[in-house]
Amino acid sequence: MYRLTALVTLLAIAFYFFTCINVSRSRTKTGVKVPATSGHPDFECAFRIQMNTLEWMPIFLPALWLFAIYVGDAVAAGIGAVWIIGRIVYFIGYSQAAAKRGPGFMIQGIAAIALWAGALGAVLRLV
Amino acid sequence: MYRLTALVTLLAIAFYFFTCINVSRSRTKTGVKVPATSGHPDFECAFRIQMNTLEWMPIFLPALWLFAIYVGDAVAAGIGAVWIIGRIVYFIGYSQAAAKRGPGFMIQGIAAIALWAGALGAVLRLV
Amino acid sequence: MYRLTALVTLLAIAFYFFTCINVSRSRTKTGVKVPATSGHPDFECAFRIQMNTLEWMPIFLPALWLFAIYVGDAVAAGIGAVWIIGRIVYFIGYSQAAAKRGPGFMIQGIAAIALWAGALGAVLRLV
Repeated sequence: MYRLTALVTLLAIAFYFFTCINVSRSRTKTGVKVPATSGHPDFECAFRIQMNTLEWMPIFLPALWLFAIYVGDAVAAGIGAVWIIGRIVYFIGYSQAAAKRGPGFMIQGIAAIALWAGALGAVLRLV
Repeated sequence: MYRLTALVTLLAIAFYFFTCINVSRSRTKTGVKVPATSGHPDFECAFRIQMNTLEWMPIFLPALWLFAIYVGDAVAAGIGAVWIIGRIVYFIGYSQAAAKRGPGFMIQGIAAIALWAGALGAVLRLV
Repeated sequence: MYRLTALVTLLAIAFYFFTCINVSRSRTKTGVKVPATSGHPDFECAFRIQMNTLEWMPIFLPALWLFAIYVGDAVAAGIGAVWIIGRIVYFIGYSQAAAKRGPGFMIQGIAAIALWAGALGAVLRLV
Protein backbone atom coordinates (compact mmCIF):
# COMPACT_ATOMS: atom_id res chain seq x y z
CA MET A 1 0.00 0.00 0.00
CA TYR A 2 2.51 2.63 -1.19
CA ARG A 3 4.48 2.49 2.07
CA LEU A 4 7.78 3.52 0.45
CA THR A 5 6.21 6.51 -1.32
CA ALA A 6 4.46 7.47 1.93
CA LEU A 7 7.80 7.28 3.76
CA VAL A 8 9.55 9.47 1.14
CA THR A 9 6.64 11.95 1.36
CA LEU A 10 7.06 12.20 5.14
CA LEU A 11 10.84 12.65 4.79
CA ALA A 12 10.35 15.34 2.11
CA ILE A 13 7.93 17.16 4.45
CA ALA A 14 10.45 16.85 7.31
CA PHE A 15 13.18 18.39 5.15
CA TYR A 16 10.88 21.20 4.02
CA PHE A 17 9.94 21.81 7.66
CA PHE A 18 13.66 22.08 8.44
CA THR A 19 14.04 24.84 5.80
CA CYS A 20 11.20 26.71 7.58
CA ILE A 21 12.90 26.38 10.97
CA ASN A 22 16.13 27.58 9.33
CA VAL A 23 14.34 30.81 8.35
CA SER A 24 13.29 31.38 11.98
CA ARG A 25 16.87 30.80 13.16
CA SER A 26 18.13 33.16 10.47
CA ARG A 27 15.72 35.87 11.74
CA THR A 28 17.33 35.62 15.19
CA LYS A 29 20.87 35.65 13.74
CA THR A 30 20.39 38.50 11.26
CA GLY A 31 17.86 40.58 13.20
CA VAL A 32 15.27 40.62 10.38
CA LYS A 33 11.98 40.81 12.31
CA VAL A 34 8.58 39.52 11.18
CA PRO A 35 6.73 40.44 9.00
CA ALA A 36 9.78 41.67 6.95
CA THR A 37 11.26 39.18 4.47
CA SER A 38 14.30 41.18 3.44
CA GLY A 39 17.01 43.36 4.99
CA HIS A 40 20.04 41.05 5.27
CA PRO A 41 21.62 38.92 2.47
CA ASP A 42 21.98 35.82 4.72
CA PHE A 43 18.33 36.00 5.74
CA GLU A 44 17.25 36.46 2.12
CA CYS A 45 19.17 33.31 1.15
CA ALA A 46 17.56 31.27 3.96
CA PHE A 47 14.16 32.67 2.95
CA ARG A 48 14.66 31.90 -0.75
CA ILE A 49 15.75 28.31 0.10
CA GLN A 50 12.49 27.78 1.98
CA MET A 51 10.42 29.52 -0.69
CA ASN A 52 12.02 27.58 -3.53
CA THR A 53 11.42 24.29 -1.71
CA LEU A 54 7.80 25.38 -1.12
CA GLU A 55 7.48 26.35 -4.79
CA TRP A 56 8.51 22.84 -5.86
CA MET A 57 6.25 20.97 -3.43
CA PRO A 58 3.15 21.18 -5.69
CA ILE A 59 5.26 19.85 -8.58
CA PHE A 60 7.03 17.12 -6.62
CA LEU A 61 4.27 15.67 -4.43
CA PRO A 62 1.53 15.19 -7.05
CA ALA A 63 4.07 13.88 -9.61
CA LEU A 64 5.51 11.50 -6.99
CA TRP A 65 2.09 10.06 -6.13
CA LEU A 66 0.80 9.82 -9.69
CA PHE A 67 4.04 8.03 -10.59
CA ALA A 68 3.61 5.69 -7.59
CA ILE A 69 0.01 4.89 -8.52
CA TYR A 70 0.40 4.52 -12.31
CA VAL A 71 3.96 3.15 -12.46
CA GLY A 72 5.02 1.69 -9.11
CA ASP A 73 5.72 2.37 -5.44
CA ALA A 74 9.41 1.38 -5.23
CA VAL A 75 10.60 3.30 -8.32
CA ALA A 76 8.61 6.38 -7.25
CA ALA A 77 10.17 6.25 -3.78
CA GLY A 78 13.67 5.82 -5.26
CA ILE A 79 13.34 8.87 -7.53
CA GLY A 80 11.69 10.75 -4.67
CA ALA A 81 14.72 10.00 -2.47
CA VAL A 82 16.96 11.49 -5.19
CA TRP A 83 14.78 14.63 -5.10
CA ILE A 84 15.33 14.96 -1.33
CA ILE A 85 19.11 14.49 -1.78
CA GLY A 86 19.10 17.18 -4.49
CA ARG A 87 17.22 19.49 -2.11
CA ILE A 88 19.80 18.90 0.63
CA VAL A 89 22.67 19.63 -1.80
CA TYR A 90 20.78 22.79 -2.90
CA PHE A 91 20.34 23.84 0.72
CA ILE A 92 24.04 23.41 1.54
CA GLY A 93 25.18 25.15 -1.67
CA TYR A 94 22.77 28.11 -1.44
CA SER A 95 23.64 28.59 2.25
CA GLN A 96 27.28 29.16 1.21
CA ALA A 97 26.57 31.39 -1.81
CA ALA A 98 23.67 32.04 -4.21
CA ALA A 99 25.96 31.02 -7.10
CA LYS A 100 26.48 27.53 -5.56
CA ARG A 101 22.80 26.58 -5.71
CA GLY A 102 23.08 25.13 -9.24
CA PRO A 103 24.06 21.44 -8.81
CA GLY A 104 21.47 20.62 -6.12
CA PHE A 105 18.83 22.46 -8.11
CA MET A 106 19.65 20.39 -11.20
CA ILE A 107 19.45 17.07 -9.30
CA GLN A 108 16.06 17.83 -7.74
CA GLY A 109 14.76 19.29 -11.02
CA ILE A 110 15.69 16.20 -13.02
CA ALA A 111 14.15 13.92 -10.35
CA ALA A 112 10.89 15.91 -10.35
CA ILE A 113 10.70 15.99 -14.15
CA ALA A 114 11.38 12.23 -14.29
CA LEU A 115 8.44 11.65 -11.93
CA TRP A 116 6.24 13.97 -13.97
CA ALA A 117 7.20 12.43 -17.34
CA GLY A 118 6.90 8.85 -16.04
CA ALA A 119 3.45 9.57 -14.63
CA LEU A 120 2.35 11.26 -17.85
CA GLY A 121 3.56 8.33 -19.94
CA ALA A 122 1.71 5.86 -17.73
CA VAL A 123 -1.47 7.93 -17.65
CA LEU A 124 -1.43 8.13 -21.45
CA ARG A 125 -1.01 4.29 -21.44
CA LEU A 126 2.29 4.63 -23.26
CA VAL A 127 4.15 2.80 -20.52
CA MET B 1 -8.90 4.91 -12.38
CA TYR B 2 -9.05 8.73 -12.50
CA ARG B 3 -6.89 8.93 -15.63
CA LEU B 4 -8.50 12.18 -16.82
CA THR B 5 -8.05 13.89 -13.46
CA ALA B 6 -4.46 12.62 -13.32
CA LEU B 7 -3.85 14.05 -16.79
CA VAL B 8 -5.31 17.45 -15.83
CA THR B 9 -3.16 17.41 -12.68
CA LEU B 10 -0.02 16.80 -14.75
CA LEU B 11 -0.98 19.57 -17.19
CA ALA B 12 -1.69 21.99 -14.30
CA ILE B 13 1.75 21.18 -12.84
CA ALA B 14 3.34 21.74 -16.26
CA PHE B 15 1.68 25.15 -16.56
CA TYR B 16 2.75 26.09 -13.03
CA PHE B 17 6.29 24.95 -13.87
CA PHE B 18 6.18 27.25 -16.89
CA THR B 19 5.32 30.24 -14.64
CA CYS B 20 8.44 29.35 -12.58
CA ILE B 21 10.66 29.23 -15.68
CA ASN B 22 9.14 32.55 -16.73
CA VAL B 23 10.41 34.10 -13.47
CA SER B 24 13.95 32.85 -14.23
CA ARG B 25 13.78 34.32 -17.72
CA SER B 26 12.46 37.59 -16.28
CA ARG B 27 15.47 37.71 -13.91
CA THR B 28 17.79 37.58 -16.94
CA LYS B 29 15.79 40.21 -18.86
CA THR B 30 15.31 42.70 -16.00
CA GLY B 31 18.58 42.09 -14.13
CA VAL B 32 16.89 41.32 -10.78
CA LYS B 33 19.36 38.87 -9.21
CA VAL B 34 18.59 36.12 -6.67
CA PRO B 35 17.71 36.24 -3.82
CA ALA B 36 15.93 39.59 -4.53
CA THR B 37 12.25 39.38 -5.53
CA SER B 38 11.70 43.03 -6.42
CA GLY B 39 13.45 45.89 -8.21
CA HIS B 40 11.77 46.00 -11.65
CA PRO B 41 7.99 46.19 -12.39
CA ASP B 42 8.16 43.53 -15.15
CA PHE B 43 9.97 41.11 -12.86
CA GLU B 44 7.48 41.78 -10.06
CA CYS B 45 4.60 40.91 -12.42
CA ALA B 46 6.27 37.64 -13.50
CA PHE B 47 6.96 36.84 -9.85
CA ARG B 48 3.40 37.61 -8.76
CA ILE B 49 1.99 35.42 -11.57
CA GLN B 50 4.05 32.48 -10.30
CA MET B 51 3.24 33.21 -6.65
CA ASN B 52 -0.48 33.56 -7.31
CA THR B 53 -0.51 30.28 -9.23
CA LEU B 54 1.40 28.67 -6.35
CA GLU B 55 -1.05 30.18 -3.86
CA TRP B 56 -3.98 28.56 -5.66
CA MET B 57 -2.40 25.11 -6.01
CA PRO B 58 -3.41 23.97 -2.48
CA ILE B 59 -6.97 25.10 -3.23
CA PHE B 60 -7.19 23.66 -6.73
CA LEU B 61 -5.45 20.28 -6.41
CA PRO B 62 -7.21 18.95 -3.27
CA ALA B 63 -10.59 20.27 -4.48
CA LEU B 64 -10.00 18.68 -7.91
CA TRP B 65 -9.20 15.27 -6.43
CA LEU B 66 -11.96 15.28 -3.80
CA PHE B 67 -14.40 16.21 -6.59
CA ALA B 68 -13.01 13.40 -8.78
CA ILE B 69 -13.33 10.84 -5.98
CA TYR B 70 -16.73 11.87 -4.57
CA VAL B 71 -18.41 13.10 -7.76
CA GLY B 72 -16.65 11.76 -10.85
CA ASP B 73 -13.45 11.69 -12.89
CA ALA B 74 -14.66 13.19 -16.18
CA VAL B 75 -16.51 16.19 -14.70
CA ALA B 76 -13.58 16.92 -12.36
CA ALA B 77 -11.16 16.83 -15.30
CA GLY B 78 -13.45 19.10 -17.37
CA ILE B 79 -13.68 21.77 -14.66
CA GLY B 80 -9.95 21.32 -14.00
CA ALA B 81 -9.26 22.04 -17.67
CA VAL B 82 -11.28 25.28 -17.34
CA TRP B 83 -9.07 26.21 -14.37
CA ILE B 84 -5.94 25.76 -16.49
CA ILE B 85 -7.45 27.88 -19.30
CA GLY B 86 -8.30 30.60 -16.74
CA ARG B 87 -4.71 30.47 -15.49
CA ILE B 88 -3.36 30.88 -19.04
CA VAL B 89 -5.68 33.87 -19.64
CA TYR B 90 -4.52 35.31 -16.29
CA PHE B 91 -0.88 34.82 -17.29
CA ILE B 92 -1.32 36.57 -20.65
CA GLY B 93 -3.35 39.44 -19.14
CA TYR B 94 -1.06 40.06 -16.13
CA SER B 95 2.03 39.92 -18.39
CA GLN B 96 0.58 42.88 -20.34
CA ALA B 97 -0.58 44.94 -17.33
CA ALA B 98 -1.53 44.27 -13.69
CA ALA B 99 -4.99 45.74 -14.43
CA LYS B 100 -5.63 43.09 -17.11
CA ARG B 101 -5.36 40.14 -14.73
CA GLY B 102 -9.09 40.21 -13.84
CA PRO B 103 -10.87 38.00 -16.43
CA GLY B 104 -8.45 35.05 -16.18
CA PHE B 105 -8.50 35.29 -12.41
CA MET B 106 -12.31 35.13 -12.41
CA ILE B 107 -12.40 32.06 -14.68
CA GLN B 108 -9.91 30.08 -12.59
CA GLY B 109 -11.55 31.26 -9.35
CA ILE B 110 -15.03 30.11 -10.43
CA ALA B 111 -13.62 26.75 -11.61
CA ALA B 112 -11.81 26.20 -8.29
CA ILE B 113 -14.86 27.17 -6.24
CA ALA B 114 -17.07 24.89 -8.35
CA LEU B 115 -14.71 21.97 -7.59
CA TRP B 116 -14.68 22.88 -3.90
CA ALA B 117 -18.46 23.28 -3.63
CA GLY B 118 -19.16 20.11 -5.62
CA ALA B 119 -16.80 18.09 -3.45
CA LEU B 120 -18.32 19.55 -0.27
CA GLY B 121 -21.85 18.72 -1.44
CA ALA B 122 -20.84 15.15 -2.26
CA VAL B 123 -18.94 14.68 1.01
CA LEU B 124 -21.99 15.89 2.94
CA ARG B 125 -24.05 13.33 0.92
CA LEU B 126 -26.18 16.12 -0.52
CA VAL B 127 -25.23 15.20 -4.07
CA MET C 1 -14.37 6.40 2.51
CA TYR C 2 -12.47 9.13 4.45
CA ARG C 3 -15.47 11.47 4.48
CA LEU C 4 -14.40 13.19 7.73
CA THR C 5 -10.85 13.81 6.48
CA ALA C 6 -12.25 15.06 3.17
CA LEU C 7 -14.54 17.45 5.07
CA VAL C 8 -11.64 18.78 7.20
CA THR C 9 -9.59 19.21 4.00
CA LEU C 10 -12.35 21.29 2.41
CA LEU C 11 -12.72 23.40 5.58
CA ALA C 12 -8.93 23.94 5.75
CA ILE C 13 -8.96 25.07 2.10
CA ALA C 14 -11.88 27.41 2.86
CA PHE C 15 -9.98 28.98 5.75
CA TYR C 16 -6.85 29.35 3.63
CA PHE C 17 -8.97 30.94 0.90
CA PHE C 18 -10.26 33.40 3.51
CA THR C 19 -6.66 34.44 4.35
CA CYS C 20 -6.15 35.15 0.61
CA ILE C 21 -9.30 37.29 0.44
CA ASN C 22 -8.11 39.09 3.57
CA VAL C 23 -4.94 40.11 1.68
CA SER C 24 -7.05 41.61 -1.12
CA ARG C 25 -9.13 43.55 1.39
CA SER C 26 -5.95 44.72 3.10
CA ARG C 27 -4.65 46.03 -0.26
CA THR C 28 -7.78 48.21 -0.54
CA LYS C 29 -7.53 49.42 3.06
CA THR C 30 -3.77 50.16 3.12
CA GLY C 31 -3.33 51.24 -0.51
CA VAL C 32 -0.57 48.69 -1.27
CA LYS C 33 -1.12 47.99 -4.97
CA VAL C 34 -0.27 44.80 -6.87
CA PRO C 35 2.36 43.57 -7.58
CA ALA C 36 3.94 45.10 -4.41
CA THR C 37 3.88 42.94 -1.26
CA SER C 38 5.17 45.53 1.20
CA GLY C 39 4.72 49.20 2.07
CA HIS C 40 2.34 49.17 5.07
CA PRO C 41 2.74 47.19 8.33
CA ASP C 42 -0.94 46.09 8.39
CA PHE C 43 -0.72 44.81 4.82
CA GLU C 44 2.52 42.98 5.59
CA CYS C 45 0.82 41.21 8.53
CA ALA C 46 -2.14 40.14 6.37
CA PHE C 47 0.28 38.98 3.68
CA ARG C 48 2.44 37.02 6.15
CA ILE C 49 -0.67 35.32 7.62
CA GLN C 50 -1.63 34.10 4.14
CA MET C 51 1.95 33.13 3.28
CA ASN C 52 2.48 31.26 6.53
CA THR C 53 -0.78 29.35 6.05
CA LEU C 54 0.32 28.56 2.47
CA GLU C 55 3.74 27.47 3.76
CA TRP C 56 2.12 24.95 6.11
CA MET C 57 -0.33 23.50 3.57
CA PRO C 58 2.25 21.05 2.07
CA ILE C 59 3.07 19.89 5.60
CA PHE C 60 -0.51 19.66 6.84
CA LEU C 61 -2.40 18.17 3.88
CA PRO C 62 -0.07 15.23 3.06
CA ALA C 63 0.42 14.43 6.78
CA LEU C 64 -3.36 14.58 7.32
CA TRP C 65 -4.08 12.16 4.47
CA LEU C 66 -1.25 9.74 5.25
CA PHE C 67 -2.48 9.68 8.86
CA ALA C 68 -6.06 9.08 7.66
CA ILE C 69 -4.99 6.22 5.38
CA TYR C 70 -2.48 4.48 7.66
CA VAL C 71 -4.07 5.23 11.06
CA GLY C 72 -7.73 6.19 10.67
CA ASP C 73 -10.21 8.69 9.26
CA ALA C 74 -11.87 9.94 12.46
CA VAL C 75 -8.67 10.59 14.44
CA ALA C 76 -7.08 12.30 11.43
CA ALA C 77 -10.11 14.55 11.03
CA GLY C 78 -10.12 15.36 14.77
CA ILE C 79 -6.46 16.43 14.79
CA GLY C 80 -7.03 18.24 11.48
CA ALA C 81 -9.86 20.22 13.10
CA VAL C 82 -7.45 21.24 15.88
CA TRP C 83 -5.04 22.47 13.17
CA ILE C 84 -7.78 24.68 11.67
CA ILE C 85 -8.64 26.06 15.13
CA GLY C 86 -4.94 26.84 15.72
CA ARG C 87 -4.84 28.63 12.36
CA ILE C 88 -7.88 30.74 13.29
CA VAL C 89 -6.29 31.67 16.66
CA TYR C 90 -3.06 32.52 14.78
CA PHE C 91 -5.01 34.69 12.33
CA ILE C 92 -6.77 36.62 15.09
CA GLY C 93 -3.56 37.05 17.15
CA TYR C 94 -1.32 38.09 14.23
CA SER C 95 -3.99 40.55 12.98
CA GLN C 96 -3.73 42.35 16.34
CA ALA C 97 0.08 42.30 16.64
CA ALA C 98 2.96 40.21 15.25
CA ALA C 99 3.94 39.36 18.85
CA LYS C 100 0.51 37.75 19.47
CA ARG C 101 0.91 35.10 16.77
CA GLY C 102 2.57 32.60 19.15
CA PRO C 103 -0.30 30.59 20.77
CA GLY C 104 -2.16 29.86 17.53
CA PHE C 105 1.09 28.97 15.82
CA MET C 106 1.91 26.48 18.60
CA ILE C 107 -1.52 24.80 18.40
CA GLN C 108 -1.39 24.30 14.64
CA GLY C 109 2.28 23.25 14.79
CA ILE C 110 1.61 20.56 17.41
CA ALA C 111 -1.41 19.30 15.45
CA ALA C 112 0.60 19.09 12.20
CA ILE C 113 3.53 17.36 13.90
CA ALA C 114 1.13 14.89 15.58
CA LEU C 115 -0.29 14.00 12.14
CA TRP C 116 3.22 13.67 10.69
CA ALA C 117 4.54 11.53 13.58
CA GLY C 118 1.45 9.32 13.68
CA ALA C 119 1.64 8.71 9.95
CA LEU C 120 5.38 7.96 10.16
CA GLY C 121 4.84 5.50 12.99
CA ALA C 122 2.09 3.72 11.07
CA VAL C 123 4.08 3.65 7.82
CA LEU C 124 7.05 2.11 9.66
CA ARG C 125 4.57 -0.48 11.08
CA LEU C 126 5.35 0.64 14.61
CA VAL C 127 1.73 1.55 15.30
